[in-house]
Amino acid sequence: MSTRVLELHQGILDKNDRLAYDLRREFEAAGVYVANLVSSPGTGKTAFLERTLSILIEQGCSAAALVGDLATENDARRLERSGAPVRQIVTAGICHLEANMIAAHLDGWRLADFDFLFIENVGNLVCPSGYDLGEALRVVLLSVTEGEDKPLKYPPMFNSADLAVITKMDLAGAVEFDCAATYANIQSVCPGIPIWETSAKTGDGMVAWVEYLKRCKLDWQLETEMER
Amino acid sequence: MSTRVLELHQGILDKNDRLAYDLRREFEAAGVYVANLVSSPGTGKTAFLERTLSILIEQGCSAAALVGDLATENDARRLERSGAPVRQIVTAGICHLEANMIAAHLDGWRLADFDFLFIENVGNLVCPSGYDLGEALRVVLLSVTEGEDKPLKYPPMFNSADLAVITKMDLAGAVEFDCAATYANIQSVCPGIPIWETSAKTGDGMVAWVEYLKRCKLDWQLETEMER
Repeated sequence: MSTRVLELHQGILDKNDRLAYDLRREFEAAGVYVANLVSSPGTGKTAFLERTLSILIEQGCSAAALVGDLATENDARRLERSGAPVRQIVTAGICHLEANMIAAHLDGWRLADFDFLFIENVGNLVCPSGYDLGEALRVVLLSVTEGEDKPLKYPPMFNSADLAVITKMDLAGAVEFDCAATYANIQSVCPGIPIWETSAKTGDGMVAWVEYLKRCKLDWQLETEMER
Repeated sequence: MSTRVLELHQGILDKNDRLAYDLRREFEAAGVYVANLVSSPGTGKTAFLERTLSILIEQGCSAAALVGDLATENDARRLERSGAPVRQIVTAGICHLEANMIAAHLDGWRLADFDFLFIENVGNLVCPSGYDLGEALRVVLLSVTEGEDKPLKYPPMFNSADLAVITKMDLAGAVEFDCAATYANIQSVCPGIPIWETSAKTGDGMVAWVEYLKRCKLDWQLETEMER
């Protein structure tokens, strides 16, 4: 890319970072814990999120979701089955979500009513890594069917994440998934990152993940209170 | 995006299209049939390509491959096992291949020595759709594990393809793959596009696909000769 294009791209990122900073302050003030879910297309973000929302709601928590796609409102319709308020962001060809798209879709929601807000990013293991959405937690998902080498081949996404979730563990046997190699590859790109094994289909690992998420929220609340 | 950024983006695409036009003429003059393979990360492009190269070489055809990744030379090493000449294009963070990257990696190859040249694009179901690489055939791959709705959610990629390949058919039962829905979704986004079902693991559908590819090359040769 030319210097001029790089400078303009940097300008877009700077503007996004400023807006993400404001969003993060807004989320903190409202006490809503925001998680940004990123992965390839087909990793199972929507199934994972639907199950997560259902468990949280059963446990008496309140949660909402924003879901990004190039086209269709299919995912919003699926997620609404959980009972959570859901809004679809149709990016009309843009390959990632940006902070201004998040800000534009919060109108009319009282953020303080929610314990959790989930953002399901566009399925893309490259471009969303560069865009801060003001989230407290970035979760990268990887399914057992995608291959153990993906963290090595897409380092920016794994490196920018706070947490990794392995999905579709029910298929691990069928695809001869090498769990140890996957852990080693994730840890080599992002040392120390916590990793959770889940199956949204069978429910395995889902309640444990939600318990972990709730502990993350408590830690975040303590941190934000201490910062004030 | 601002008008200025859009104009610059358009400028990059125009420059890419001009270079792709030149590449296409070069490939035609050399008689090498070029296929650009696009898909999500983890669809199995490399396994599909490795098997395709092996079959072609067994049948006495000559073939080479260029393979794009953000990082690592893993895929080039895998593909070299087929016996074909292979070059890795490390994009260093760029989320797709561009025509200038192809041009820069052809040096020292005599294109006329190859019957087929395959380009394995970066795993990304969004961004590569906008970049012509001078290919004669754009092949979009979709694995049975990714979900039947992907063509509807990523229309530009499916719409810009000449051919769709369904991969990992050996897992169709395990994931309760709905073949009819997938066909309907692909056809609704790109009416009339041929669809092939394959498994690089078992080999099912692979020889038939290679035979089809050879027929595509014959048609292309007739067309290019008639245009002269």
